[in-house]
Amino acid sequence: MSGQLVVQKFGGTSVGSVERIQAVARRVASRARAGDRVVVVVSAMSGETNRLLGLVAELSGNPSRRESDVVVASGEQVSSALLSIAVEAEGVPARSFLGHQIRVETDDAHGRARIRSIDAENLLQALAQGQVVVVAGFQGCDAAGNITTLGRGGSDTSAVAIAAAIGADVCEIFTDVDGVYTTDPRIVPHARKLDRISQEEMLELASLGAKVLQIRSVEFAKRYDVRVHVRSSFNEEPGTFVVPEEARMEDVLVSGVALDRDQAKISLASVPDRPGLAEKIFSPIAASGIIVDMIIQNGGAEGHTDVTFTLPRAELSEALALVSKIGEDIGAGDVRGESDIVKVSVVGLGMRSHAGVAARIFETLSREGINIQMISTSEIKVSLVIDEKYAELAVRALHAELVEKESPS
Amino acid sequence: MSGQLVVQKFGGTSVGSVERIQAVARRVASRARAGDRVVVVVSAMSGETNRLLGLVAELSGNPSRRESDVVVASGEQVSSALLSIAVEAEGVPARSFLGHQIRVETDDAHGRARIRSIDAENLLQALAQGQVVVVAGFQGCDAAGNITTLGRGGSDTSAVAIAAAIGADVCEIFTDVDGVYTTDPRIVPHARKLDRISQEEMLELASLGAKVLQIRSVEFAKRYDVRVHVRSSFNEEPGTFVVPEEARMEDVLVSGVALDRDQAKISLASVPDRPGLAEKIFSPIAASGIIVDMIIQNGGAEGHTDVTFTLPRAELSEALALVSKIGEDIGAGDVRGESDIVKVSVVGLGMRSHAGVAARIFETLSREGINIQMISTSEIKVSLVIDEKYAELAVRALHAELVEKESPS
Repeated sequence: MSGQLVVQKFGGTSVGSVERIQAVARRVASRARAGDRVVVVVSAMSGETNRLLGLVAELSGNPSRRESDVVVASGEQVSSALLSIAVEAEGVPARSFLGHQIRVETDDAHGRARIRSIDAENLLQALAQGQVVVVAGFQGCDAAGNITTLGRGGSDTSAVAIAAAIGADVCEIFTDVDGVYTTDPRIVPHARKLDRISQEEMLELASLGAKVLQIRSVEFAKRYDVRVHVRSSFNEEPGTFVVPEEARMEDVLVSGVALDRDQAKISLASVPDRPGLAEKIFSPIAASGIIVDMIIQNGGAEGHTDVTFTLPRAELSEALALVSKIGEDIGAGDVRGESDIVKVSVVGLGMRSHAGVAARIFETLSREGINIQMISTSEIKVSLVIDEKYAELAVRALHAELVEKESPS
Repeated sequence: MSGQLVVQKFGGTSVGSVERIQAVARRVASRARAGDRVVVVVSAMSGETNRLLGLVAELSGNPSRRESDVVVASGEQVSSALLSIAVEAEGVPARSFLGHQIRVETDDAHGRARIRSIDAENLLQALAQGQVVVVAGFQGCDAAGNITTLGRGGSDTSAVAIAAAIGADVCEIFTDVDGVYTTDPRIVPHARKLDRISQEEMLELASLGAKVLQIRSVEFAKRYDVRVHVRSSFNEEPGTFVVPEEARMEDVLVSGVALDRDQAKISLASVPDRPGLAEKIFSPIAASGIIVDMIIQNGGAEGHTDVTFTLPRAELSEALALVSKIGEDIGAGDVRGESDIVKVSVVGLGMRSHAGVAARIFETLSREGINIQMISTSEIKVSLVIDEKYAELAVRALHAELVEKESPS
């Protein structure tokens, strides 16, 4: 069989109406007619998952996750079969597969299950018969045959996992943007689309909330060596390839400057510094389901210390009530919450080999008069918490200094 | 384990909204709390199947039946899990099963598949654990694991088949009527609800289009000796039990008078009577997918004969065009269609043992001045085609003569 073996993933917006399903079908069919073997992975029609979850919520404040998964998985079931029908209407044979029909086996963590294995035999057989295969994304089944779902954005993970299972040449993720940009083009109009980005950098960007790819799908791509291509649903231009570090080629210092506005912080001042302090603060917060991001502890004066942490903005008031109570228990001098902050992050493999990137970041912000409230670094990332009013200024300044100056233009 | 083992089937109207699902859940939960083991079989929420078929039709004039089944089966998937959630909200543990999860194995005739077997082990296990089991009706899977559907009304068949597989004490079919009546109460206000009806009579009524039970579910009940109870979703009164002939008990002459308005007829007059005539007429009609009901051939004069048959009213004009062409080919004198006719049927096991029922029917209609256009009889049924304007008069007269006069009131 000539041609490439391709996995193509289309999200909910791309299959959100009969007309859009037909547009996807035309694209898929023309690829198949060109000689490629095509596996398509689809999300539910946009709005459908929320409609179904709404029905569940009306019936119970605390629904069984097993049953919610059965309800929600119907969304991808419908869109996969509809797309299959639409591809056939284009004159190309097609068939759908549900998660359990290709045994996308997961653990039993309903609503956020992790894929363990995929039995690709049925799927490969259909491809060998010249059929386009359309797989319902986002869903699998546990060892006992119960339907599971992978959590929001799970169709990306389905697509990459299937690409790994069949040894696809490429896994194309279709989105409403042209690819991965060096920063948000709404803030920096001359932000550059990256032709390639390393898996490690993509992981950092995904963890920063850049919505291009679900983080677990990048982990899968890294572990199973899947070539991922993020590209536009609206045109035929190449997008951004997510590649292993060694295939990164371009020797770029910094790949991206990311901005996360969904941030708030809570500070406990003058806490008596005793062993087990961090546990006393963060165990009850974790138990209440609030996800803490950055944590900083500064040794203060006379056996006292200051603790500050960031969290999603929507959870500030709930967390503040909880932490105020904790503050009393541990004798903190003051507990304060702030929601007018943002997190700016600079991501780049180049940080590994080039010393002084962090220093250039600090200098740049200082030059603009921007005070840095918190700093957190990893091997290939520097994240900074700053006042929200400086958000765009900081992004523009850092992009100019670390991307534009360095790029071979 | 004390109590009964019960299968309860609720149709699309009964689960058509969140409120109605909650009402069903309360009913199911109270039955479970009373000590019965309950398996519920549900249809899709009313309107859902048509919405899904509408999407399919927008995409293709000739969609793959395999894929249509995948789309449509999602309707029962959603309602089964929603009902399970609602039962749990009533404080009774519950879980849903899809067709493939209890291996409702069917042939591969997508859209009208027939059940071959059911593996009830998972289901019985859940019951033994004290759970209410909610099964998605209407769906199964073929030997290769493809999703199949049983055709409209298939949830009745699912319910009876599951009742057979688990040896249920009773299979309760909930509907919007109180049970099976001796005739349509809108025509005869004092029509009587039957406490019992034989499976054979129910089969005849179902084949006449009485919408209480799908005909294949009655065949299943007869073959596997399942006790079926047709009863109201809106009250707790007993409805009608469908029982084997020997359990019929009451020695009633006639169980029901049924009226079918969806009738038209086509007559070919003065056809030269040669061997193979019927085949020449009816093979092309069957090939075009038109379902013919009654057929009557009267030997006419001088080697000519008249042929008349009935068919669904909506297909009259299509059929008439076809038969006119056939009429020319075989030299018929005249081809005529009529749509102002109805079929009135009298059904009763008593016809087997009591001679003269047919004669009483003819006398009754003659007394009212009603001309009989066609007659067709079976062992326990007499069907008559008459002018539509006499429909109600005929039903009232036959009901008065054969049901009211005979009943122990």
